[in-house]
Amino acid sequence: MNIAISEVKRLKDLTGVGLTDAKAALEEANGDFDKALAAMRKKGLTKAEKRGEREAREGLIGTYNHDGRIGVLVEVNCETDFVTRNEIFTGMVKDIAMHIAASSPQYVSIDNVPAAERKKVTAEFTEKAKADGKPADMVEKIVEGQVKKHFAERCLLDQPFVKNPDQTVEAYIKEHIARLGENIVVRRFERLALGEVN
Amino acid sequence: MNIAISEVKRLKDLTGVGLTDAKAALEEANGDFDKALAAMRKKGLTKAEKRGEREAREGLIGTYNHDGRIGVLVEVNCETDFVTRNEIFTGMVKDIAMHIAASSPQYVSIDNVPAAERKKVTAEFTEKAKADGKPADMVEKIVEGQVKKHFAERCLLDQPFVKNPDQTVEAYIKEHIARLGENIVVRRFERLALGEVN
Repeated sequence: MNIAISEVKRLKDLTGVGLTDAKAALEEANGDFDKALAAMRKKGLTKAEKRGEREAREGLIGTYNHDGRIGVLVEVNCETDFVTRNEIFTGMVKDIAMHIAASSPQYVSIDNVPAAERKKVTAEFTEKAKADGKPADMVEKIVEGQVKKHFAERCLLDQPFVKNPDQTVEAYIKEHIARLGENIVVRRFERLALGEVN
Repeated sequence: MNIAISEVKRLKDLTGVGLTDAKAALEEANGDFDKALAAMRKKGLTKAEKRGEREAREGLIGTYNHDGRIGVLVEVNCETDFVTRNEIFTGMVKDIAMHIAASSPQYVSIDNVPAAERKKVTAEFTEKAKADGKPADMVEKIVEGQVKKHFAERCLLDQPFVKNPDQTVEAYIKEHIARLGENIVVRRFERLALGEVN
């Protein structure tokens, strides 16, 4: 199996493990990057994941203002005041605020979607799938995929990062967890656009 | 009745009427500024009030960031793009955002307090007044005053303006309505403080 060294390095950076472990994980996943990452997470192998269990109580409130027409607040937590003052961290907070201005997420992650909203969307897709004459035994599977996609588009962590659409915002943050050696959590955000109906 | 010229001028600026009308209103209210203003409003005399009926659809989203620990967004509407670009207006938006950071209002005005919240607070004060052995026929009056005060402290428009505590934020905005000749409305705001429990 021929694994591109760039992929190995990317997985290494993202997870904080060594090159050998990253290469082994990619080989095991037949070169599928996301599969390799998921497998490493499952095994609790990634250092970023382990850091993810530590409490993040410090951090920054980031603001972004686009021309007086869109404003964003975001609370990004880390573990120490030391990292709070690190310009890699402050730059990341600014980028996330800018991403939120550009991509209008509604939730931080799927965990923040209210159960009632998930139910409503599921019911709508189910109705549509049935109306479209989809085979009854496939409706559930089809709807599951549609609901997942629907919320992935609306959840900050699942969105393609606006400054590098090849990675999700979650992957971008994971890179910074590995780089800064601290757990980093986007806790919440607010976005106001001039004159929007709410 | 001796009315200070400074008070007459203040009422004139706030309402946009002439000096004579402002003086007459103050005399009629025995020099009580708030009473004079209230009476003028009731009569629909103030130009600012009349402007207040016009629709405000333009405006700015203002942001304020205090040291990365408090962030504020505020939407302030006016009538024309021309005023949006006026530095008196942009300065006012900035001041209001800063005020919100400093004074932590929870609502724009009493109209934005949910009925359930008003009911809950009223019940709490009523219970306390009864427990304190206040005369039954006075409880309602006492509670009314306490509830009014409670929400005035939490409503942006009723708070003393942080840069000039002698006037409310509402009076500060009214001054700008008179100065800029357009209706100005604080539509909504968001305030995040690092690590606060919500």
